Amino acid sequence: MKGYFISVEGGDGSGKSTQMQRIEAYLTEMGQEVLLTREPGGTPMAEKIREMILDPANRDLTGRAEMLLYAAARAQHVEEKILPALRAGKTVLSDRFTDSSIAYQGFGRGLGDMVAEVNRIATGGLEPDLTIFLNITPAAGMARKNRQDGHVLDRLEQEKAAFHEAVYAGYLQLAKENSTRIADIDADRPAEAVFADIRKALDRVFGFVPQK
Amino acid sequence: MKGYFISVEGGDGSGKSTQMQRIEAYLTEMGQEVLLTREPGGTPMAEKIREMILDPANRDLTGRAEMLLYAAARAQHVEEKILPALRAGKTVLSDRFTDSSIAYQGFGRGLGDMVAEVNRIATGGLEPDLTIFLNITPAAGMARKNRQDGHVLDRLEQEKAAFHEAVYAGYLQLAKENSTRIADIDADRPAEAVFADIRKALDRVFGFVPQK
Repeated sequence: MKGYFISVEGGDGSGKSTQMQRIEAYLTEMGQEVLLTREPGGTPMAEKIREMILDPANRDLTGRAEMLLYAAARAQHVEEKILPALRAGKTVLSDRFTDSSIAYQGFGRGLGDMVAEVNRIATGGLEPDLTIFLNITPAAGMARKNRQDGHVLDRLEQEKAAFHEAVYAGYLQLAKENSTRIADIDADRPAEAVFADIRKALDRVFGFVPQK
Repeated sequence: MKGYFISVEGGDGSGKSTQMQRIEAYLTEMGQEVLLTREPGGTPMAEKIREMILDPANRDLTGRAEMLLYAAARAQHVEEKILPALRAGKTVLSDRFTDSSIAYQGFGRGLGDMVAEVNRIATGGLEPDLTIFLNITPAAGMARKNRQDGHVLDRLEQEKAAFHEAVYAGYLQLAKENSTRIADIDADRPAEAVFADIRKALDRVFGFVPQK
């Protein structure tokens, strides 16, 4: 592949949206042609699958079927959008990729190793050159988000805490097992400090010469 | 499982619909409670996925994404309908199952072994106790169908011949590799003769005593 593939992972309150914008701006400034995309979705066909997954009318969807629908959307995204851009030498910057499925379905919903196996097939083995993991505990992330929104947790959101803990444990294990690919960045700090670390990871992967 | 799971496979002109009816009538006569179902589909959620696959507006769907959507529909069908029926001691009779995906996507579209791998995950390893394969060459099947319909092949249908030959080769290989599970039945004969052989296969699996 001629282009670089970067994914960004992180839960609620991790500052993912802010950091995505900074990454895009920095890479553009450094002369890269950046294609910004997101999952689930990224193409019209994949967005249709996303709608089916997220539609509350489809709450009888089983865990396995949901996992396979996410994988179908990802296969479409990879073949129709990500691979052509990488072949054309663009940098692809994706809000979430396979790690999200492993953390949410594999760890959160307890589907285990089958999630990685299905996604290896869905992506044809494509992995990001670099994954930025914005590491913040669910409790700290939620506290940050609530401070921003003035939002108080309802009973259902509180009950979901165990699920978010399991997802977070999944991300920690992924970061440990893929320490070359995944930059594990402490996200419970001011945005400037977080981005300074992201920038170091980008400079290393792209071979940019540090500017001071 | 307390109940038996039977699938029926066969292309155009194989007489699948007719034989499905005969099988259902025979098993009911023999005291079985039969649940008739079909793929892709079988449940409201799986039918929604089926519609998405078959919608001509979605012709930009890639081969891998299509394969994963079929697998998602199958996972839903297995968990929501087939397994509960088998646990309740019913006989499940399905018009198509995993073999269709292996033949059509694996052989027809050239996706190979990944189709079996994904479907093992989608089904949780569930396989039919018996698969009736109504074996007829694509040419003979088409000739039969045309005699019935008074239908003449258009250019597109003729061009699809290579695809149907590949699918048929897939079924032959599956039948060879799974000769215990798959009853390979010559379907290019009168319906009575075909059903006589199907009945023998059913009698063997259900342990019915032959009636003469």
